[in-house]
Amino acid sequence: MCTLEKHGDVFVLTLTGSSDVDEHRFGPSAIDSILSAIAKAKAEATPGSALITTSHGKFFSNGLDLAWAQAAGSRAGARERLLYMVESFRPVVAAMMDLPMPTVAAVNGHAAAAGFTLALSHDYVIMRRDKGVLYMSEVDIGATLPDYFTALFRAKVGSATARRDVLLRAKKIKGEEALRMGLAEAAYDSEEQVAEASMRLAKQMAGRKWAGEVYAEIRKSLYPDLCGVLGLDIRAVVSNSKL
Amino acid sequence: MCTLEKHGDVFVLTLTGSSDVDEHRFGPSAIDSILSAIAKAKAEATPGSALITTSHGKFFSNGLDLAWAQAAGSRAGARERLLYMVESFRPVVAAMMDLPMPTVAAVNGHAAAAGFTLALSHDYVIMRRDKGVLYMSEVDIGATLPDYFTALFRAKVGSATARRDVLLRAKKIKGEEALRMGLAEAAYDSEEQVAEASMRLAKQMAGRKWAGEVYAEIRKSLYPDLCGVLGLDIRAVVSNSKL
Amino acid sequence: MCTLEKHGDVFVLTLTGSSDVDEHRFGPSAIDSILSAIAKAKAEATPGSALITTSHGKFFSNGLDLAWAQAAGSRAGARERLLYMVESFRPVVAAMMDLPMPTVAAVNGHAAAAGFTLALSHDYVIMRRDKGVLYMSEVDIGATLPDYFTALFRAKVGSATARRDVLLRAKKIKGEEALRMGLAEAAYDSEEQVAEASMRLAKQMAGRKWAGEVYAEIRKSLYPDLCGVLGLDIRAVVSNSKL
Repeated sequence: MCTLEKHGDVFVLTLTGSSDVDEHRFGPSAIDSILSAIAKAKAEATPGSALITTSHGKFFSNGLDLAWAQAAGSRAGARERLLYMVESFRPVVAAMMDLPMPTVAAVNGHAAAAGFTLALSHDYVIMRRDKGVLYMSEVDIGATLPDYFTALFRAKVGSATARRDVLLRAKKIKGEEALRMGLAEAAYDSEEQVAEASMRLAKQMAGRKWAGEVYAEIRKSLYPDLCGVLGLDIRAVVSNSKL
Repeated sequence: MCTLEKHGDVFVLTLTGSSDVDEHRFGPSAIDSILSAIAKAKAEATPGSALITTSHGKFFSNGLDLAWAQAAGSRAGARERLLYMVESFRPVVAAMMDLPMPTVAAVNGHAAAAGFTLALSHDYVIMRRDKGVLYMSEVDIGATLPDYFTALFRAKVGSATARRDVLLRAKKIKGEEALRMGLAEAAYDSEEQVAEASMRLAKQMAGRKWAGEVYAEIRKSLYPDLCGVLGLDIRAVVSNSKL
Repeated sequence: MCTLEKHGDVFVLTLTGSSDVDEHRFGPSAIDSILSAIAKAKAEATPGSALITTSHGKFFSNGLDLAWAQAAGSRAGARERLLYMVESFRPVVAAMMDLPMPTVAAVNGHAAAAGFTLALSHDYVIMRRDKGVLYMSEVDIGATLPDYFTALFRAKVGSATARRDVLLRAKKIKGEEALRMGLAEAAYDSEEQVAEASMRLAKQMAGRKWAGEVYAEIRKSLYPDLCGVLGLDIRAVVSNSKL
């Protein structure tokens, strides 16, 4: 589950559950909760809004709720539930791409599979240096990735060797290495520093007072293949009253 | 307006107007002038040709002539003029992609929006270290970018974070940072050094005596999505008499 | 010609001919030999397999057998033979992309044109620091590249300036520079060190016991444009018995 708070111009979406054993798995109701929070931020957006997504506890998110899938009791049932979650999560990535404001993922802990995907769906990723890894587990688990996962990594990771190390080598990536690989913007030594730096960056972006609709369309124009997979149109927009 | 001179094998296209207030804006007649100069270089090309584009004064170019657009007197008229310039400038980028010789942008000053786009349409960009910034102003101005602008940045800028910083953050980028971001080849401390280094590079490339048609087709094959947006075909060519 | 040996879980494909003048040119029979070796490795693959491709002598491979093309005796005949080799070699790159195991190119010497292409078709490239260059000779020779060559470089080289330097500048790239350009994983001072490091990496990957079919599909999902040009489908696969 998640909460949405507003600090001045900055929306803060928090994946809740402070216990260190809560992996913030994305099952059907968690996905609904995230989608509602993003929709609320979008509905309340003004020029100069920004959004931070963060989490309580040890995990940013360990991904889709595979235990819920396996609880279906049969292999066919598990596959059906997995596919259901994969398709339910697609609108989350689409909503992040379409959100009319700058976005920052404040990653305090582990971000794996769909959790890493959610982090990378933000414009900026800020990490812990001392704990937490980014990890795409699919090749280790023995399953290919949804098309929009691979499209996101192709879109947001420029280095071909970094993409290979993430998806084809299942590398567990700490903060400093994430910086070198172009996966994160900055890394800090504590939860407080991550929170402060994320808020500083969000406020700096908010201070530019960009027109949200223009911002979202420029973002999408950076990633046309991903937008195609997500079913998002890319439109020309002019918000300038002189043009 | 611009001039085209020839120094040995090297064509030098200069955006003229030495006054420090001349922003070398691309209005209809400036665009025509540039297109004619490029066409002349193409018509006179031989194996071992190269082209340098440079400028007088403080600005390489600040982009399309928005003042001319606004002088239309109405918002609809301004939009129409802006769209006219956007479509008139598309063949400039296409001609640079199709030019049968190596190309170097010697960027002595500010290069913003379509001015930055023109610089990046060259095979190599050489900058000042001490003055001049690269800057895509669109998100600040409140307008999305033409499709061939974003296609060019996706094609020519490998780093996903650099593309984001240019287009979605409207970062003003000086010489040293342009090197780190993969946007420029080298940066120097004076106009003379930029001119010398650009001529040295152009002559070095010219000395390879590459077949121009093959060179242009290999260039285009590096950027198929951009060529699609520009309406350029990519063809197989063999100029080697033994093959 | 080539041999295929098995060392534990690791297949070793060797381009044979230890003489320093054997350039390991890919003519029709060499291509058949390589295709057969890859097919054999695929047929015998188990979870935990890996493949190393290496060579004897001074050359990894200098590319397609242009002398055989020219021996056709006429320009039309040479073109026909060249085109025949280009199309015969396409399945080699396709087979490498589709191989259900991690792959390492142990590049002991020069790798030019189709030879460089073969090296880059592997998941990892390990080079000599002290000798051997990577080199795409096409612009120097005066011929455009086959579509799957350029698609491979666009897929596997993230840096736009590196792609330009390889294909449009025909740069001869030694080990250290290949690391900086993202073309190689590591570089060593002797043939023995290259062999040891390649085997170490191959065994490390093999030790992950990845499901080969999943591995191959994730690899292909990294490079959809290349797979399109190669005629390879990308499929969703789950090998995990719990899902």
